[in-house]
Amino acid sequence: MTTAPKGLEGVIAAESTISFIDGAEGVLEYVGHAIGDLAQHSTFEETVYLLWNQRLPTRSELADFSAALRERYEPPAGMRELITSLPKSAEPMHVLRTMVSALSMHDSSPNDNDPGSARSKALNILASTPTIVAYFDRHRRGLDLVAPDSSLSYAENFLYMLNGEKPTETMARAFDICMILHADHTLNNSTFAARVIISTMSDVYSALTGAIGSLRGPLHGGANEGVMHMLNEIPSVEEAESYIMGKIERKEKIMGFGHRVYKTKDPRAFALQGLAERLASDTGNQDLYAKSHKIELVMERELGAKGIYPNVDFYSATTYHCIGLKLDLFTPMFAMSRVAGWSGHVIEQLEDNRLYRPKAKYVGPHAVEYVPIEQR
Amino acid sequence: MTTAPKGLEGVIAAESTISFIDGAEGVLEYVGHAIGDLAQHSTFEETVYLLWNQRLPTRSELADFSAALRERYEPPAGMRELITSLPKSAEPMHVLRTMVSALSMHDSSPNDNDPGSARSKALNILASTPTIVAYFDRHRRGLDLVAPDSSLSYAENFLYMLNGEKPTETMARAFDICMILHADHTLNNSTFAARVIISTMSDVYSALTGAIGSLRGPLHGGANEGVMHMLNEIPSVEEAESYIMGKIERKEKIMGFGHRVYKTKDPRAFALQGLAERLASDTGNQDLYAKSHKIELVMERELGAKGIYPNVDFYSATTYHCIGLKLDLFTPMFAMSRVAGWSGHVIEQLEDNRLYRPKAKYVGPHAVEYVPIEQR
Repeated sequence: MTTAPKGLEGVIAAESTISFIDGAEGVLEYVGHAIGDLAQHSTFEETVYLLWNQRLPTRSELADFSAALRERYEPPAGMRELITSLPKSAEPMHVLRTMVSALSMHDSSPNDNDPGSARSKALNILASTPTIVAYFDRHRRGLDLVAPDSSLSYAENFLYMLNGEKPTETMARAFDICMILHADHTLNNSTFAARVIISTMSDVYSALTGAIGSLRGPLHGGANEGVMHMLNEIPSVEEAESYIMGKIERKEKIMGFGHRVYKTKDPRAFALQGLAERLASDTGNQDLYAKSHKIELVMERELGAKGIYPNVDFYSATTYHCIGLKLDLFTPMFAMSRVAGWSGHVIEQLEDNRLYRPKAKYVGPHAVEYVPIEQR
Repeated sequence: MTTAPKGLEGVIAAESTISFIDGAEGVLEYVGHAIGDLAQHSTFEETVYLLWNQRLPTRSELADFSAALRERYEPPAGMRELITSLPKSAEPMHVLRTMVSALSMHDSSPNDNDPGSARSKALNILASTPTIVAYFDRHRRGLDLVAPDSSLSYAENFLYMLNGEKPTETMARAFDICMILHADHTLNNSTFAARVIISTMSDVYSALTGAIGSLRGPLHGGANEGVMHMLNEIPSVEEAESYIMGKIERKEKIMGFGHRVYKTKDPRAFALQGLAERLASDTGNQDLYAKSHKIELVMERELGAKGIYPNVDFYSATTYHCIGLKLDLFTPMFAMSRVAGWSGHVIEQLEDNRLYRPKAKYVGPHAVEYVPIEQR
C-alpha cells in the first residue's frame, strides 16, 4: 500500500508510446516526432493517424484515412434535429459533452472495443465534433446551418461551417496548426479520465464524454478563455506592465503562465507565438499581439527565474481571437483537437487493459451506533 | 517519481470520510455506520443525507431534504421532449449518461461549485435519474409516460413511474434497501472518475456524466447483468452444480463472484441474499433463488479457500428480477443509487481540491526524423 502525493503528482499511472514531454528542456514529441516539426510539416489529419497508429501514414493510407473522416463530417440522422432543439443559452462545452454522448445512441454497436471498432468510433467522434460545435453556434445565432463540405480538410471545413464562407489559406493553415499543437499532451487530467473510464471496458463514447467534462474545468482547458479575459481587461499596450506588476504584487495568478510539467517556455507556445504575430498583423490585431508580447517580457523578467513561462494557453488566445473565434468556443476548439489524443490513449489502454481501482484512506469515524430518528 | 502498480492497485489516491471497507473482515461502513444497520433501519433518502453531510439528519432536516428532492422529481421543462425524441433502440445507460449531461443545459448556473450549489446540482441529478430511466423505458415500450408523484418516496415513485401502479410495501422496501446497499463503495472506478473530473473545477454534471460512462462497463456496474445471463443459461436447480463445475474446469470467470477488495463474502451480499430469498418466495421465483443458492454453495466448496465469494452483483440479479426489472435496467438502477456516493465524493473533493495529473512513462521512440510523405 502506497499513499500517493495529492493529485497523484509525480505518480506514473500508465505506460505510453503516444507522447513525451521533457519539462526542463521544453520538449514535446508525438511518437518521437518533435512538435515543432509536425507544426511545420504535417497536417492535423496526418498527426491524428500518427497518434492512433504510432507511425506516419503512407500517401495511400492518408488518402483512405481522410476519405473515411470526410464521409463522417455529417453526424448520423437525428443529430441535427437534436442540436437545433437545445437551449440557445447553453454553454458550448455542455453541448459538446452531451452531443458526443448522444452519438452512441445512433451507433448500432456502440460498445465494440476491438482495435478496429475503437478506431472507427473514435473517427465518428473526431468527424462529428466540428459539426456539432458549428451547428450549435449557428443555431444559437439564429443562422441557417451550413452543411459540411467533404472536399475540404478538417480545418477548412470547420471554419466554413462556422462562418458560411471558405477560410483563406493562411487562416485554415493557422487553425490546422492549432489543432496539431493541442492534439496530445501525455497524461493530462482529461486523458487520464478517458483511460480510467475505458478501463471498465465501457466504450469509446463514454470515455470521450468524460474527457470533455474534465477539459471544461478552469484548471484545465478552460484556462485559455481566462487569458482572453485578461487581455480584454488591459486597456492598452502601455498599461500592460503596470497591470501585470499589480497582479504579481497582489500574488494573483496570471492566466497562461506556468505549468505543472514545464519549467521553461512550453514548446507549443513557441509555435503559437509565431502564428499569433502573423495573424495579428494580417487581421489588424497588432495591439493584441503587442500586449501579449509585453506581458511575456515582464513575466520573464519578474518570474522567469522561478520557471514560470508562457504555456499553450497564452498565445492560443490571441491566435483564436484573430481567427475570429468567439471566447466560449476556445475550449471546444481545444476539445476538437484533443479528441485525437484522447482516442489514441483509449486505443492504447484497450490493448493492455487493467481496471483502474485505487484506494481511499478512510479518515472518518468507525462503529457509529444507529440512533433512531426520534432520538436524534 | 513513483511507478504505481497497474490500475493503481493498492495506491491511496484520496482521503475520505464517506465509506470504509475491511475486505478481510467483510465490513462496509458509510460514515462509520455498518451497512447492515443502514439496510435494516434507514431509508435511501436518509442514507443520501448521511453521505452528503457526514451525519444522520434530524427529523426536520430529513423532512426538508425529502421535500427538496420530491420537488425535483420532474426534470426541467424540455427534458421530457428530449427523452421521448431518443431512438427507442438505445441502451438505457447511454440514454442516462446523455440525459444527465443534458440537465446542465437546463440549469441557469451549471458551473457553480460552492458547497451549497454542489449539493443542489447533486440533488437535481439524484431526483432526475429515476424519472429519466422510467420515462425512457415507457417511451421505448410505446406506453404513455407516468409523471412522478411527489407524495411517494424515492423508491416508491420510481417503481410507480416505471410500472404505472404503486408498488406493494414489500417491493418498495426491497428496492429501497437495494438503493442503500449500492450507494457508495469507496474509490471504485466510477467514483474515482468523478473525483478526477471535478478536480479540474469543472462541474457536478460533468463529473457524474463521466461516472455513468465508467459504470456501464462490464468490469464495473455491467457485471450484474452478466449474473442474470448466467442464471438464465442454467436450465434447472439440478443442473447448477454441473454448469459451475464445467466453468471452473475450463477456468472461465463466474459472474458475481470475487472482488479486488473483499476476500470474504461481500457484506452487501448478506443483506441482498435475505431480500432475494423473501422476494423470490413472494413472486413465485423460488427456482431462481434456489439456483443462486446452489451456485453459492458449490463455489464456496470449490473456491472459498481462495477468497472467492459472492459479491454485490450476485444476489442483486435475483432481487432485481423479482422486482420485475428488465435486464438492461439493472445497471441504470445501480447508477440511480450510486449518484448518492458519486455526489458525496465530488462534494468532498471540492472541499480540498488538488488537480489529478499523474504521469505516463514514455516507452516509445525519440527524435524521429520527419520524412516527407512522398518519400515514405
